[in-house]
Amino acid sequence: MSATFDVAVIGATGTVGETLVQVLEERDFPLGQLHVLASEASVAQSIPFRGRNVRVKSLNGFDFNQVKLVFFCAGDAVTAAFAGQASEAGCQVIDLAGGAGAPAVVPEVNAQTLQGLSAPSRVGTPGSIATALALALAPLQGLLDIEHVTVTACLPMSASSREAVRELARQTTELLNARPLEPRVFDRQVAFNMLAQVGEPDAAGQLALEKRAHRELRELLNLPLLKVSISCIQAPVFFGDSLTVSVRSRTPVDVQAATQALEQAAGVEWTGADDYPTVVGDAVGQDVVYVGRVRGGLGDPCELNLWLVLDNVRKGAALNAVQVAELLIKRLS
Amino acid sequence: MSATFDVAVIGATGTVGETLVQVLEERDFPLGQLHVLASEASVAQSIPFRGRNVRVKSLNGFDFNQVKLVFFCAGDAVTAAFAGQASEAGCQVIDLAGGAGAPAVVPEVNAQTLQGLSAPSRVGTPGSIATALALALAPLQGLLDIEHVTVTACLPMSASSREAVRELARQTTELLNARPLEPRVFDRQVAFNMLAQVGEPDAAGQLALEKRAHRELRELLNLPLLKVSISCIQAPVFFGDSLTVSVRSRTPVDVQAATQALEQAAGVEWTGADDYPTVVGDAVGQDVVYVGRVRGGLGDPCELNLWLVLDNVRKGAALNAVQVAELLIKRLS
Repeated sequence: MSATFDVAVIGATGTVGETLVQVLEERDFPLGQLHVLASEASVAQSIPFRGRNVRVKSLNGFDFNQVKLVFFCAGDAVTAAFAGQASEAGCQVIDLAGGAGAPAVVPEVNAQTLQGLSAPSRVGTPGSIATALALALAPLQGLLDIEHVTVTACLPMSASSREAVRELARQTTELLNARPLEPRVFDRQVAFNMLAQVGEPDAAGQLALEKRAHRELRELLNLPLLKVSISCIQAPVFFGDSLTVSVRSRTPVDVQAATQALEQAAGVEWTGADDYPTVVGDAVGQDVVYVGRVRGGLGDPCELNLWLVLDNVRKGAALNAVQVAELLIKRLS
Repeated sequence: MSATFDVAVIGATGTVGETLVQVLEERDFPLGQLHVLASEASVAQSIPFRGRNVRVKSLNGFDFNQVKLVFFCAGDAVTAAFAGQASEAGCQVIDLAGGAGAPAVVPEVNAQTLQGLSAPSRVGTPGSIATALALALAPLQGLLDIEHVTVTACLPMSASSREAVRELARQTTELLNARPLEPRVFDRQVAFNMLAQVGEPDAAGQLALEKRAHRELRELLNLPLLKVSISCIQAPVFFGDSLTVSVRSRTPVDVQAATQALEQAAGVEWTGADDYPTVVGDAVGQDVVYVGRVRGGLGDPCELNLWLVLDNVRKGAALNAVQVAELLIKRLS
């Protein structure tokens, strides 16, 4: 008889939390009792799991002694307020909000980080951008001496919220029916348009998503001085991240060898030289990062360019968190 | 009495050619007789100009001795086949296809290039990407020692063709009405999706648009060794280019001074620190390049990042060509 683990998912009514519960079911996670927790506003909702509906309970007053493993999917502030309680109750904490203080782990890239942690441990899972970049760049570290990575991340509505997903559908319908446009979630037209930012910038003009990806990519690749230039822009797309990546190496790049390394890498799928992947056609609902347009620079032998797409909610968040949990429970068994 | 010039527009039924005729009218170009020319397939169409319809004539057999100025808006092959005849007839040739052999000119950036040309001259107008980049970067050349420019250009349907514009509308309608999707102009779903490329790559994986922008930006900024990394991707947007630009300088960047320089630059409009421009809200139908999100790097003092949007058909093509023509005819008058 194998062990099972009682689990709490916090923020279970959000896009990521809901997907996380699905992934736990799909992957046959050795789960005993599932507690789905959210703020008071979401209590009384329920989440489908293993053929029945699990009632959402209030996070306030939850006794963390009931569980061994807690997923925080509700944003920085909630993690900051409750992760301490969970740790004190002896829980393994997996923080999807990427707050400071916990090492960021992508199992294919730096699973060894988990070895050094004392139990009960607190582990972060990086955002979708750093996850995609780390999966694609880690297999190249033996071939390239990476100096600088420049990324444009075209993010979908689901990177913001479920309301943003609905807003794109609504705005598009209004425009196609020549009705007056009424932006609600966004402050302007997002249908058939590209927005320069996702979220609000700080005083220096940087977005939280950009700062997070910058910090996490350095950590995941174990390159603390890596230069990372990143722009997060809002695309009129429902689900899935699309990234252009330009890598500068200190040494010349062998594009063919890089392509082979990507072809063999875990968690990455190369679509071949005659095709390229897209979020709609390839990434959404899938567990890997797709890579295409692997090419050198224009007259610059030290450059490598890539196109990456991934399901921002799965490998970019929920799936990766469950994969981390699978490794953590091996240490508990 | 001021002089007028007889003009031919080749490719007048395309998106760019049609806009070019509009711009000639809007700007009160001192135009005598207008000849609008196209392939046999478009003959019998007509183009509105100054309140009447100008009949499209066949390019084959046109006598270039009738005109003083010829705009080529029909692509490389047509320019290659007919520009020689036009030059032999003593015409000033303005080539919007950006073929090699003619200097690329953006009046705000390198009008002085025209001084050195013998008449009748042949001048190229760069593509929309290099035009936008040159307008934004030329005013910074005194402040930055630009080493490397990395660009992701999110291109609209109108960068491909009028059929592509219709295809986005049609695909979107099909999807919103849950009808089966039938891609025609593209080989896949482009609605609510991002495509990794615009046009077909060469054997090395590079796009013609990328190679053109790379070559033209070096020429416009007079930096023949400038490193330019560029990815052209297809966004589900009808009109207007959106560009993320990351500039690496050999010397530290003063972001405030760069912002001031952009604020004062000709052909550029900065939307202020509290806002950012978009193609739908700002650029389409306008004559300038809009810039926003002017910011430094994350912990890198030698980096400057920008967001640019512009009307790819106007300043990115037709308007710039007419501005070049206005300078050229000063030499004829």
